[in-house]
Amino acid sequence: MGQKTCQQTKTVSERIIFDCDLNDKQTLFGGKTLSLLDENAGLASFKLVNAKIATASYDHINFWHPITTDKYIKIESFVTGVHDRQIEVFTKIISHDLKMNLSEIAFTSFCNLMVLRSATQIEIPEITPETDEEKYLCQGFAQRLEQRQRDYSQKDEFLSHLMLD
Amino acid sequence: MGQKTCQQTKTVSERIIFDCDLNDKQTLFGGKTLSLLDENAGLASFKLVNAKIATASYDHINFWHPITTDKYIKIESFVTGVHDRQIEVFTKIISHDLKMNLSEIAFTSFCNLMVLRSATQIEIPEITPETDEEKYLCQGFAQRLEQRQRDYSQKDEFLSHLMLD
Amino acid sequence: MGQKTCQQTKTVSERIIFDCDLNDKQTLFGGKTLSLLDENAGLASFKLVNAKIATASYDHINFWHPITTDKYIKIESFVTGVHDRQIEVFTKIISHDLKMNLSEIAFTSFCNLMVLRSATQIEIPEITPETDEEKYLCQGFAQRLEQRQRDYSQKDEFLSHLMLD
Amino acid sequence: MGQKTCQQTKTVSERIIFDCDLNDKQTLFGGKTLSLLDENAGLASFKLVNAKIATASYDHINFWHPITTDKYIKIESFVTGVHDRQIEVFTKIISHDLKMNLSEIAFTSFCNLMVLRSATQIEIPEITPETDEEKYLCQGFAQRLEQRQRDYSQKDEFLSHLMLD
Amino acid sequence: MGQKTCQQTKTVSERIIFDCDLNDKQTLFGGKTLSLLDENAGLASFKLVNAKIATASYDHINFWHPITTDKYIKIESFVTGVHDRQIEVFTKIISHDLKMNLSEIAFTSFCNLMVLRSATQIEIPEITPETDEEKYLCQGFAQRLEQRQRDYSQKDEFLSHLMLD
Amino acid sequence: MGQKTCQQTKTVSERIIFDCDLNDKQTLFGGKTLSLLDENAGLASFKLVNAKIATASYDHINFWHPITTDKYIKIESFVTGVHDRQIEVFTKIISHDLKMNLSEIAFTSFCNLMVLRSATQIEIPEITPETDEEKYLCQGFAQRLEQRQRDYSQKDEFLSHLMLD
Repeated sequence: MGQKTCQQTKTVSERIIFDCDLNDKQTLFGGKTLSLLDENAGLASFKLVNAKIATASYDHINFWHPITTDKYIKIESFVTGVHDRQIEVFTKIISHDLKMNLSEIAFTSFCNLMVLRSATQIEIPEITPETDEEKYLCQGFAQRLEQRQRDYSQKDEFLSHLMLD
Repeated sequence: MGQKTCQQTKTVSERIIFDCDLNDKQTLFGGKTLSLLDENAGLASFKLVNAKIATASYDHINFWHPITTDKYIKIESFVTGVHDRQIEVFTKIISHDLKMNLSEIAFTSFCNLMVLRSATQIEIPEITPETDEEKYLCQGFAQRLEQRQRDYSQKDEFLSHLMLD
Repeated sequence: MGQKTCQQTKTVSERIIFDCDLNDKQTLFGGKTLSLLDENAGLASFKLVNAKIATASYDHINFWHPITTDKYIKIESFVTGVHDRQIEVFTKIISHDLKMNLSEIAFTSFCNLMVLRSATQIEIPEITPETDEEKYLCQGFAQRLEQRQRDYSQKDEFLSHLMLD
Repeated sequence: MGQKTCQQTKTVSERIIFDCDLNDKQTLFGGKTLSLLDENAGLASFKLVNAKIATASYDHINFWHPITTDKYIKIESFVTGVHDRQIEVFTKIISHDLKMNLSEIAFTSFCNLMVLRSATQIEIPEITPETDEEKYLCQGFAQRLEQRQRDYSQKDEFLSHLMLD
Repeated sequence: MGQKTCQQTKTVSERIIFDCDLNDKQTLFGGKTLSLLDENAGLASFKLVNAKIATASYDHINFWHPITTDKYIKIESFVTGVHDRQIEVFTKIISHDLKMNLSEIAFTSFCNLMVLRSATQIEIPEITPETDEEKYLCQGFAQRLEQRQRDYSQKDEFLSHLMLD
Repeated sequence: MGQKTCQQTKTVSERIIFDCDLNDKQTLFGGKTLSLLDENAGLASFKLVNAKIATASYDHINFWHPITTDKYIKIESFVTGVHDRQIEVFTKIISHDLKMNLSEIAFTSFCNLMVLRSATQIEIPEITPETDEEKYLCQGFAQRLEQRQRDYSQKDEFLSHLMLD
C-alpha cells in the first residue's frame, strides 16, 4: 500500500479579511470561517487520494480568537489519519496582525471525510507525519477515531428522539 | 431569574437547493451547510437574550444524509442549555424529497456560544424544554458541557504543539 | 380533485440582517428583499404541487417599513388561490426589533405562478383556508384574478408601444 | 421648477446570463431578475434627483418570456412620472438571442419610489417625454397613480387582517 | 467578408457602487472592477461574432481614479481591432459624481480575446470605426498587436524560468 | 533602509474550482481569475509594508491555459520590484490536474501598486531575490518600469481622445 507524508497533503490559503465578511461585533462571521474551512479541508483530502469524497462529520471546532480586518489569515489543512475509507483532516487558521506583526492560532478543527464506494477499488495511502506538530496530531488520531465510533454507535438512539415535523 | 421555553428560541429557515450550491457529487456543499447552520444557530441565541454573542465552538457536527436538488430543506435551531455565559444551541436540518414526499434528518450539530462581557450586567434566562425531543436534548446538556470543559482544560497543551509559521 | 390547506403550503424563513445587505440609507436593499421573496414564494408553490412552475407576475408589492440591522425578519408565504394552471402565493415579511421586542409587517406581496404544461397531466389541488387571515386573503383572490386578467388582456396593446432597440 | 427628459434619467445595463443564475427550468431566477431590476430602477431615480430615495412599491411586474443562457439581456429604466415626493420608474428587460439574432421584451415593471424628507427642501424636477414610447408610458402615469392611491387607502384595512405571529 | 461598426459591438453597463464592494480605503475593490471589466468586454466580443471565445490576455489596465460610493459608474466596451482569430476589446469606466454632477475616466483597459477553433469555419467581421474616439483607438491596434506578438514570442523563454512547485 | 526577501512577501492561496465559477466553455471565468489575482497580489504588497496601498495598473496579464474543474489551482504572488512609492507584484497561477497528477502555469501577471501618501513618512523596504525564479523576475523590473513610465507619459494624450458621454 502507498504512503504519503502530511506535507504532501498540506493545503494553504491566505486571505485578506473584507469588511463585508464581518458581523455586528466587527469580527469574521462564523459561517464564513466554516465555509473557508470546508473548502480547504476538502482539498487536503483530494491530495491524499483522487476519488469522490464526502464530509461525514466535524468535531473539536474551536474559535480561539476573533478575527478582525486588521489581520490577514492563513488557513492550513493536512491529513492526520486514515482508517478504512475514513480520512481525518486537521485545519488551523493562523491570524496575523499586520500592525503589531503578531501571529496567533485563531481557529482549529478536525474533519472526518469518507471515500465513497465506487466500481473500481481505490487504494488509500497511509499517512506519515514528519514534524513535531504532525506527529503530535497524528498520535491523537486513534483516540479521536474511537470517540467518533462511540458517538456513531449511538446514532440510531440519538436520531430516534428527533422529530421529522 | 427569567425563564424561556425552547420553543421561544426556535428559529426556522426553509430553503430550496440551487444547482449553484452543489459540489462535484451533486450534493449540497459542506461549506454552504455550515454557513446556513451558523446563521440559524446565531439567531436562536439572540432570541434567548439580546446581547453581543460569539460562537465559541461546535461539536457533534454530523452530515447524516447528502442533500440534493430534488429536495428542499428545513433548518431548525433552538437553545438546549445555559451555563454561566455559555449558551448551547442544537440545530437539525430536515430534507424533504418533493417527489417521494419523504423527510429525513440530513444533518445535526451542537453549537456552543458565549455572551460577551459588557458594562451592564446581562441576565440570561434559564431554558425550559416542553416536548419529548426538547427534553431529550436538554437532558444531555450536562454531559456535553462536561466534555467541553474537559476539552477546554487541554487547550493550552493542545495549542502549544501547533506551529505559528 | 385533491384539497390542501394554506397551512400545508406555508413556507417560513427567518433571517438575520447583515451589514452587507444594507443600502446607503442603512436599510435592507430592495433587491435583496425581492430575491428572498421569490425564493420563499416559489417553495410555497412546490408544496402545493410537485411540478415545473414559473413565476408569471407580481402585484401589490409593498415595502411598508424599512428593515434595519437591529431587526431579524421572518418571511412567510402560502398559497391563497388556484385557477386552472395559475397559483397565487401571498408573502409577508415580519420584522422583529430585538431591543424593543416589537414586531411589525414590513413587506407584503402577491405572486402569480404558472404550472408549465407537460406530457403527463398534473392535477393541482384546491386550496382551503382555515384561519381568519387565510380566509381574508383567499376571499380577495377572485378580484385580484379578475384584475390580472384585465391587465393581461391589454398585454399586446402595451407591448406594442415598447421599443426593442 | 426644473425639467428633465426621460432620456436624462435613462439607465442601461447589459448582462450575460451565467449558468449559475439559472433555476431548475434552465431559465434566469425570478429573484435574480428582481434584484437586477431594483438596482437599475434605483439608479434611474438618482439621475432625476440626488437625494435619499426609498422603494415604496412595485406593480405590474410581468415576466413575459423566460431568459436563458443563449441570450444576453439589456435592462433599461427611466422615470415616467413625478408627483409630490413620488417618482415612478419604468423598467424593461430586452433579451437578445445571439444565435437567432432576435430580440424580445422579456420583462416589464413599474416601480414607485419615495424621496425621503430631509432638513433641506429638495426640489424634484418634472419629467418630459420625447419619444413615442416615453409619451405612451408617461400618459398612463395618472391612472397608475390613482390605482396606487386607491390601494394605499385600503392599507390599514388590509394590514389589520394580517397576523404578527 | 462582413463588416461591423464599433457601435454595433458597444456594450454598456451602469452600476451603483455598494458599500459591500469597497475596500479599506473606501474605494471600489480592484478585483470587483476587473470582474465587471471581463464580463462587459466578453459581451462586446459576442456582439461581433457568435462563437466560443476565450480571453487570452489583458494589457494597459489602468486605474486612473478611485471609485467611491458617492458615484455611479458606466462601463463601456467595444471592439477596436480584429486579426485572424484575435479580437481586441477596449473598455473604459466613467465614474459620475452625483453630488458634483461631474464625470471622469476612472479606468481603461485593452483585452485580447481568441475565437476558439471549431468544426465549422466561422467568419469574423472586420471592424469599422466611426467617431473620433473609435478612430483613435482603432488606429493604435496595429502597434498594440505588434507589441503583443513581441511579448508572445518570448513566452517560452519567460515560462521556462518559472517554477512549478 | 530596510530589506525584505521575495520569500517574505510570498502569498499563497490554493483553491478548488467550483462548477459555479465556470463559463460556457466549462473553464474558469476570466473575471473570477482576475478577482483572485487582485486579492492575492494585494496581500503580497501588505507583507512588504503595512500602509494604505492602491492598485495602479496591471500589465502582461496572460491566460496561458484554461482552468477546469478537474483541477485545483495555486495562486502565488510576491514582490519583484520597488521604486519610490511603486511596488511591483508578480502573480502566477499553477493549475494541477488531480487525475493526471500534472502541473502547468495557467496564468501570469505583473501588478503595479502605489503606496498612498500619508501624514507620517513610511519607509518601504528594498526587495532581495534569492531563488533563480525570483532573480529572473526581479532583473526584468527596470525594463518593465521604464515601459510603464513611457506609457504613463502618454496618459494625457490618451485620455484626451476618450469621450465622457
